[in-house]
Amino acid sequence: MANKTIRVTGTQGPGFNMTVSAGKHRFSIDQPQAGGGNDEGPTPLEYLAGSLAGCLGAIARIMAHQRKIELRGLDFEVEGELDMDGLLGKPTEQRVGFQGFTVKVKLDAALSDEEKKAFAEEMERRCPVSENLSNATPVHVVAE
Amino acid sequence: MANKTIRVTGTQGPGFNMTVSAGKHRFSIDQPQAGGGNDEGPTPLEYLAGSLAGCLGAIARIMAHQRKIELRGLDFEVEGELDMDGLLGKPTEQRVGFQGFTVKVKLDAALSDEEKKAFAEEMERRCPVSENLSNATPVHVVAE
Repeated sequence: MANKTIRVTGTQGPGFNMTVSAGKHRFSIDQPQAGGGNDEGPTPLEYLAGSLAGCLGAIARIMAHQRKIELRGLDFEVEGELDMDGLLGKPTEQRVGFQGFTVKVKLDAALSDEEKKAFAEEMERRCPVSENLSNATPVHVVAE
Repeated sequence: MANKTIRVTGTQGPGFNMTVSAGKHRFSIDQPQAGGGNDEGPTPLEYLAGSLAGCLGAIARIMAHQRKIELRGLDFEVEGELDMDGLLGKPTEQRVGFQGFTVKVKLDAALSDEEKKAFAEEMERRCPVSENLSNATPVHVVAE
């Protein structure tokens, strides 16, 4: 076991905008003006989709390093659909979150189509974000 | 049903750094230098934790608006632990992703402790990111 703890903090004022601190880095989460925000950053759902791409990309980089494959670059497109009724508190038959995610990845490397397919499958298997979405992950929210 | 599609794209070069585009916004994902990156942004796992805080905060803002509660602000702390062996491709008994997340939230509002507890429970229930983590969400990765 090689356990690691990830920790971030977030501060939100009287609007939708939140500033998240992760070590020395900061990022801004907001909603578009049409949704009542100030459009000062991507939405939480866009960050979720981005973290999935980022995680798969990091695993690809680790795999390429481990196998001495020249991976010149990757392009990702992540798409997910969700029913907005649940989050708005309206009755719905649908789940609250995304029904699923489709990730299209273009690998710029000297690999055959079959090798790229196997490479992408292993990326998915070894990516924590993908695994946490695919399988139930306990979330415990505590009001202080 | 009020379905919405969320879509982001990500471009990664020969290192760990990825630039994600979400509408007009961009954000940078990287690894620390000790992990082989250039430390140009938070890691994918930090973005996942941040998206969870951001989502809970957005739901809190919607709930406060719907109930005409003066919610002056929120402070979040998100923590999760994972075993790094899985993502590195080493044999492990642990799951690849986070074992779970604990979210501490301080609500700055004129609510009793009991009301804050109930408010936080509904935040969790209506938050897509929390729901997608808590329950299995299909992820489909396609190499192109």
